[in-house]
Amino acid sequence: MNELEVKIPAAEAGSYRICIGNRILDSLWKRIEADFSRSNKFVVTDENLVSEGHLVALLGQRNVPSFVITPAGETSKNIDTAVSIIEAMEKAYLGRDSLVVALGGGTVGDIAGFAASIFKRGVPVVHIPTTTVAQADSSIGGKTGVDSSISKNAFGAFWHPAAVYIDVATLTTLDDRQFRAGLVESVKHALIADNEYFDFLESNIEAVLARKADVLERMADYNCKIKASVVEADPTEKNQRRMLNYGHTVGHAVEAAGGFELLHGEAVAIGIIAAGLIENEMDLSEPGRLDRVRKIFEKIGVPITLPANLAEDNLIDLMKRDKKAVNKWPRFVLIKEIGRVYCRDGQWAVEVEQDVVEKILGKL
Amino acid sequence: MNELEVKIPAAEAGSYRICIGNRILDSLWKRIEADFSRSNKFVVTDENLVSEGHLVALLGQRNVPSFVITPAGETSKNIDTAVSIIEAMEKAYLGRDSLVVALGGGTVGDIAGFAASIFKRGVPVVHIPTTTVAQADSSIGGKTGVDSSISKNAFGAFWHPAAVYIDVATLTTLDDRQFRAGLVESVKHALIADNEYFDFLESNIEAVLARKADVLERMADYNCKIKASVVEADPTEKNQRRMLNYGHTVGHAVEAAGGFELLHGEAVAIGIIAAGLIENEMDLSEPGRLDRVRKIFEKIGVPITLPANLAEDNLIDLMKRDKKAVNKWPRFVLIKEIGRVYCRDGQWAVEVEQDVVEKILGKL
Repeated sequence: MNELEVKIPAAEAGSYRICIGNRILDSLWKRIEADFSRSNKFVVTDENLVSEGHLVALLGQRNVPSFVITPAGETSKNIDTAVSIIEAMEKAYLGRDSLVVALGGGTVGDIAGFAASIFKRGVPVVHIPTTTVAQADSSIGGKTGVDSSISKNAFGAFWHPAAVYIDVATLTTLDDRQFRAGLVESVKHALIADNEYFDFLESNIEAVLARKADVLERMADYNCKIKASVVEADPTEKNQRRMLNYGHTVGHAVEAAGGFELLHGEAVAIGIIAAGLIENEMDLSEPGRLDRVRKIFEKIGVPITLPANLAEDNLIDLMKRDKKAVNKWPRFVLIKEIGRVYCRDGQWAVEVEQDVVEKILGKL
Repeated sequence: MNELEVKIPAAEAGSYRICIGNRILDSLWKRIEADFSRSNKFVVTDENLVSEGHLVALLGQRNVPSFVITPAGETSKNIDTAVSIIEAMEKAYLGRDSLVVALGGGTVGDIAGFAASIFKRGVPVVHIPTTTVAQADSSIGGKTGVDSSISKNAFGAFWHPAAVYIDVATLTTLDDRQFRAGLVESVKHALIADNEYFDFLESNIEAVLARKADVLERMADYNCKIKASVVEADPTEKNQRRMLNYGHTVGHAVEAAGGFELLHGEAVAIGIIAAGLIENEMDLSEPGRLDRVRKIFEKIGVPITLPANLAEDNLIDLMKRDKKAVNKWPRFVLIKEIGRVYCRDGQWAVEVEQDVVEKILGKL
């Protein structure tokens, strides 16, 4: 089992450990009991994890109070679910010495992490992410939240985990489309931070898609190191952390314009291609780079062109309402090489003229 | 206008300013605009503050989005109110560059501070406390929260304010019973931290009760300095901050056993007398000290004996369920002199045998 430390300067605890392994779920509870011996544990998961057998694998015959999010997925990511979790914790007589254990994908982690952050003014959470997107991205970094009827993560907190335990074997039961879409965040990590990692992904993409444990473990290790180093430098997203938004500015607009029929990773893949086209317009391109990105996305099986039914005006309008917009127009993260983000005047998200964006949408 | 700095080591901002003055509400909005020029403001207050004219005094003719908590008081201190505030902020198109301005007593501050802490993963809050208890205690220190049907502050966060503005003139419209009960936290501050402040309160209690501005300003200054120094040393209540719990262990039980008919400060006054009786049993007394405390509470007009209808067994049972209990029995903060807390083995809340507590309840 690999381990690495994440140092969060502003947090009380100061750092947390990420453990990566294969088939570790069966023995993980003992490890958690040892790492957090003085806490009363409470598990949050969803109905999919239960039916896939992961909750039983984690707990065995132990009698641990739990909350199963039903239905699984985004529709449950709301304040009522967070309130229900907290009320269940109160009914289990849990106090400030509790530990929330989040077993599941990004939605479970977001909801459980948020509930932990507000239960009696905050108790620690540990994440056991079980999807490609959660293992690469959402379980690390401390962003938690639930949606309102108006916007995503309207309620939320920065709440860094007390530990993250990654079992790549949990990916073997993951739905194929979810598995593939989640890989887009790994490609993003490589593009913004590590050209060797991009080479690794290109060389090993078939083994990744075949869900070979050793390759998935190495991938998790690359992802966690990259994400952790960015989060350490900027825990609450003041500037540098914005580089993680690569491909997300157009991606979020594509996701919303399509009525959320595309998965997040699928929309971000299109957004990364859009970023590549913008880079071409702004003399930030290198020969063959965008083709390499297109090719790996094609192998992964995620879209690289705009769906036919999306109106370009609507995308522009959605981008103007981006939550990170400044004067009603978003900034864009761009790269100048594979593994190096373009930084201008100390800013990791830069201005791009609206007509440039309109032009590249025509080519997308 | 007096000002002092509070330094919070673990927080991002690092410190915040407390401003104390008389009749500053009319001109305060300009000051807030200057101090937070880049933020979009949102005011949270309650119907009492509106009817007393304080909201108009603060805003004048300015058109600032606001939320008025109705009804005022503890019954609105729940998650639904916090959700309604956040939805109102979303409908006003507010984003992460928002500032929540909480105008009111402890309940308004707790709810508004909590809403600010979870709105889009946290936006700053400034407090304009308008009651004796909020000015002395709850507006400083960063505790926020709302109640569930099962327990107080079941949902909450440590969320330190970006600034606190105290106008002692707002106390002149406060209900007499509320005004008097709120003074108990000031007496508590003197007892745990500053014997000169206790002398000051003894000498000036008539002027305090007559709500003389100059005396109220000096009182606010003493309170803020004491509370701030304790909070700075221990922002999230790991140990030293527990001294603020003086009188609260028995006080909370008395408050709950009486079905919350006593105000918090009234119950804490009884709890402080109980602490004094425990000190007598544990050789921590000084000649005449407890009489001085009883006398100042009599002048303030808060109870110093147990209400006749409270069963002692019930109080013991409630104390066993204290949220800070260790092995089902709470620790007690005790003083050894006026202005000096008794600290044993590095602990600011110490063990007291149950039979000692049972004995003193008989004398209370």
